[in-house]
Order: sequence, then structure tokens, then C-alpha cells
Amino acid sequence: MAVYTDVSAAQIAAFLSLYDIGTLTSFHGIAEGVENSNFLVQTTAGTYILTLYEKRVAREDLPFFLGLMQHLAKRGLSCPLPVAARSGAMLGELSGRPAAIVTFLPGVSVRRPSAVHCAELGRGLAQLHLAGRDFSMRRANALSVSGWRPLYRGARGRADEVAPGLAATIEEELSDLERDWPAGLPAGVIHADLFPDNAFFLDDALSGIIDFYFACTDFLAYDVAVCLNSWCFEPDASYNVTKGRALLAGYESLRPLGADEASALPRLARGAALRFLLTRLVDWLNVPEGALVRPKDPVEYLRKLRFHRAVDSARDYGLAP
Amino acid sequence: MAVYTDVSAAQIAAFLSLYDIGTLTSFHGIAEGVENSNFLVQTTAGTYILTLYEKRVAREDLPFFLGLMQHLAKRGLSCPLPVAARSGAMLGELSGRPAAIVTFLPGVSVRRPSAVHCAELGRGLAQLHLAGRDFSMRRANALSVSGWRPLYRGARGRADEVAPGLAATIEEELSDLERDWPAGLPAGVIHADLFPDNAFFLDDALSGIIDFYFACTDFLAYDVAVCLNSWCFEPDASYNVTKGRALLAGYESLRPLGADEASALPRLARGAALRFLLTRLVDWLNVPEGALVRPKDPVEYLRKLRFHRAVDSARDYGLAP
Repeated sequence: MAVYTDVSAAQIAAFLSLYDIGTLTSFHGIAEGVENSNFLVQTTAGTYILTLYEKRVAREDLPFFLGLMQHLAKRGLSCPLPVAARSGAMLGELSGRPAAIVTFLPGVSVRRPSAVHCAELGRGLAQLHLAGRDFSMRRANALSVSGWRPLYRGARGRADEVAPGLAATIEEELSDLERDWPAGLPAGVIHADLFPDNAFFLDDALSGIIDFYFACTDFLAYDVAVCLNSWCFEPDASYNVTKGRALLAGYESLRPLGADEASALPRLARGAALRFLLTRLVDWLNVPEGALVRPKDPVEYLRKLRFHRAVDSARDYGLAP
Repeated sequence: MAVYTDVSAAQIAAFLSLYDIGTLTSFHGIAEGVENSNFLVQTTAGTYILTLYEKRVAREDLPFFLGLMQHLAKRGLSCPLPVAARSGAMLGELSGRPAAIVTFLPGVSVRRPSAVHCAELGRGLAQLHLAGRDFSMRRANALSVSGWRPLYRGARGRADEVAPGLAATIEEELSDLERDWPAGLPAGVIHADLFPDNAFFLDDALSGIIDFYFACTDFLAYDVAVCLNSWCFEPDASYNVTKGRALLAGYESLRPLGADEASALPRLARGAALRFLLTRLVDWLNVPEGALVRPKDPVEYLRKLRFHRAVDSARDYGLAP
């Protein structure tokens, strides 16, 4: 949860006056999004989300994120649509921060996704990948294989405080994956953080995908691997192959995986687990003074990583032969 | 800001199933209210606020607060109306906490109220007092004169850390006010915390009053004194008599103050300033470990208190002769 920047009604009303979306009738800071300050804003014209981008989001990346959401929404993906000011700009400034208004999406995220949710999510992910095919902007994935070792450097000395032997496990994974990371797979726009928090449902049907602030250009199958990690494990870290099968079948109903993608899936899943293990480890070891939010447990991803290391083939995830 | 309790969509949907207000389409924890967890909930029937009462609100007081809001709303005051479940109960339980649903009020609070806002607020306060006349429940004001000394006891030893001489000033005020506190003034339901945060405006017209969780039975003129303190001072702690005149004229347009109330106003204003000075002082000296919220500065109320000590009569606040 986060509302870092305090803004007044007068400031928001002045900001809204640059848009053709009515006048302010209500606003509430909402306790969502780890990186930014978000406000649910109601006007005489409807409901919107106002986001103030805090320092963890690089300003130069914002045109990519906003342009991508606009592109995907125009191609029928249910995601927030950035609203342009009368000037045509999607990005403005409020209280000294870059700020944007996007449309409000109804729906609720599910904490314990069922196989039905996983199937829906798989289809939605494929729809995102297909809708993103002709998006012209590119953004490198700073949290892919070449970024993991530098990220780990800051946590290396204290990794074993979190779990005995963690440092050795990570070192081994880094070496393996740096050596064996796939090349040449189909690439394009990926969400890269499509956890259950970032998907909305209405009556068990996917109603929207949000939070594109890790989106980048990378292997499409890596995004599938992120979702297998975040949607298909049970709280005890056991892999639920029914959910995996549903997610993969949902995905393949719109975009079948190639043989190269299928054979790379176990390595991609290990990489995705390592990526979230590393960012959680760094956050865990660097809780800011006065933080209200307890960081997420890195050990969850260590356990998932161990599962992936024992996997033989994509069949083990539930991929249809 | 506060969202202390984390609840899932499934929990909220199950809670809503006890009511006749449609099915859940969206919910967001909102960063408002210091005492409770609040969620802005949208259903197929409309928008509501779901409040989970955290431990600082005494469970036995909830029937008073909810009954009062219902009473006032029925008499035309624009305030949140508690929604009854199909069972008839206004109070339920969610995630181990007492929980209630109230109607959503449009409007935004103003950070720097103008004289126009003060006039509106004065009328709204009088409307609240008149609407509350026939409310049958009673709740003592735990933060009136007899509660101040016990409250101060926990801060006494460290008061001078906050401002040199603060302890002596407070001791003197306590003695003066305990001796001279008015008796026999018209009493009834008061809001007791009607700061600008707790009033909503649309186009400079008062659109609603919220947050009744300090409401109690006390002198009506004490509520006026609270509002003079919280609405009519400038950021440099100077009293803006134009705003005071507007607030008092607005109030008296619906409920003229009696001669006894007018003559007591300076003491009531001192008492109100001392009450907020003391609660802020205690909060200031007891910031919980890991708090995200910086407590409000007690010195603001010390400066207001000094102004009130120099006041001769209610005329100095702008009361019409």
C-alpha cells in the first residue's frame, strides 16, 4: 500500500481543469500500488484513477507504459486507458511529480485463484501478447538474466540470514541460468508482473489487467513462466498442476507455444522464480525505517525455485503434449 | 491515513451477501480515518463505505455512533447513513472486527477554508445540533474538562521537550478551566471533531459531514468553540475574524447562541484548544514504532490557546452584538 504524496482537492481540481472529464466531486487516496500514489477520483463525468509517479518509477519510462496501455486498450484488452489532456498529453505534473489519469476498471482481484481463474488469466495473457505485437516502442527488461547478478550483489553478504544455504543456491542458479538462458524465443511486449493482485475479475471472468509499470520487451514465454509462479502454487509451495494445465490451456487457446518455448519453459520458470526471490530478498534486507508495509517473504520463491529445479519438461507444468 | 485490516474480495463479497445492496464489483482500501480501516466499495447497486472498527474505537460506543448517523440523516443532515443488513442490524463482523456499511457522500474537504466555507460550516453545525435534539441515546464526552488531567498525566514529564514552558502553561490552564468551566449551558449531541477534514463541499456548498466517532453529549457551544479553533485560524496561528464572523453568523442563522453561551465562548474555546493540544501532545510523544504517519504538531494548539487567553469576550471571535 502506498500514498506517498499528499495532494489537496484544489490541486486535483486544477489538474482536472486541463482535461475534458468533468469537475471533481470526490477523491480518495487508495492504499494500492507499491511504487506510486494512487487516487480514486470521481468527477461529474465518471470515475478515474489518478496516479502520481514516485521516484522508483523512472520518468523516461512513462511514455512507454502509458503508450502501451493506450495501445493495448485500443486493441480490446481490458486495461486502464490513459486519458489525454486537452493538449493531447497523457502525462502531466501534479505536486512536483509526473501524473496521469487513467480510466477506472471494475473488478476485484482474487487472493486464492481457482483453476477457472487461471484459465481466464492464461487467455488474458495471450490476448495481451497478441495485442502488443504491433506496439512500436521497446523497453529492455532490467530484471532479466543480465540484471540478476548486479541485483544480488547488494544482498549477497546477508542472504544466509534469511535462509541457511540461500547464498549458495542463488550463486548456483545464477551460473546455471547465465549459461543456459534461452535465446531467440518469440519476443514482444510482456507484463512481467502479472500476479493475482494485478488481475481483476467479475463473477470469475477476467475483467481487467492493471499495473503495467514493469512491462518491457522480452520473451513472451517468460511472461507465462512468471504467471505459473504467481498463480499455480499453493500456500504450502506445492505446484497445483490442475491450475497450471488450466493456465497453459487458456493461453494456448489463443497463442499456442512453439516447441522452442515449451522446451525452454522450465528454465524460464526457474529464472522467474529467481527474479522474484532476488527482488524480495533485497527488499527484505532493506526495510526502510518507519515502513508500515512488511516486505514479502523471499523464502516463498526459494521453495518455488526448488520445485522448478526438479522439473523435467514443460509437461510437468501441465502443458498439453 | 490508515488501512489496518487486510480483507479479501471473498470476505467482502460474503459480508455484502447479508445486505440488499447488490453484489461486489470493486473495492479499494482508502487512506483516510485515523482510527479505523475504510474501504470504498462499489456494488451493482451503488457506492458505499465499509468501515472496520479497530481497537481505538470502543465496541460499546458503536450503537451510539451508528444510531446517531441514522437519526441525523433521517432528519435531513447530509451525513453517512448506516445501511442495515437484511437482519436489521447496522453492525456486523468482518475479519474479526466490528464492521458497518454506510452510504457514500460526494464532496471534497478543503484544506484552506474560506469565509464562505466557514459560513456554510456554521450553518451545517447548527443543523446538526437541531437535528440531534430528539436523539435519545447519550454518550459522555471523555475528552471534556474532567478527562484532560488524566490524559495529561502520561505526557507531563516530557511536555517541555515539545516546547519550553509547555508544562507550566498546561498546568495553569487545567487549574483555571477546572475551576471556571461553564455549567448549565444548552447541551445535546455534538460532533466534537468537526475539523475541515470532516466536512465535504461541492462548489463551495457544504455537501456532507463525516466521521462521527468522537460524537457525544455535551454543550452545543463547545462544538462551536471546536470549530472556531479548527476553521478560523490561519497557518501562522493568527485568528481570522472574518472567518469567525462568517462561521458564527452561519450558525446563528439557524440557532442563535444564548447570552450564557456567548459569555462562555472564550472559556470553551480555551478548553477546546487545550483538548486538542493534549491529545496531540500525547500522540506526539507516543509515535508507534514503524508509524508511517507523522503526528500533528501540538504547538499549533499551544499558539491558539495563547490567542484565547487574551480574548475579552465573544465579540473578539466575531460574534454579532
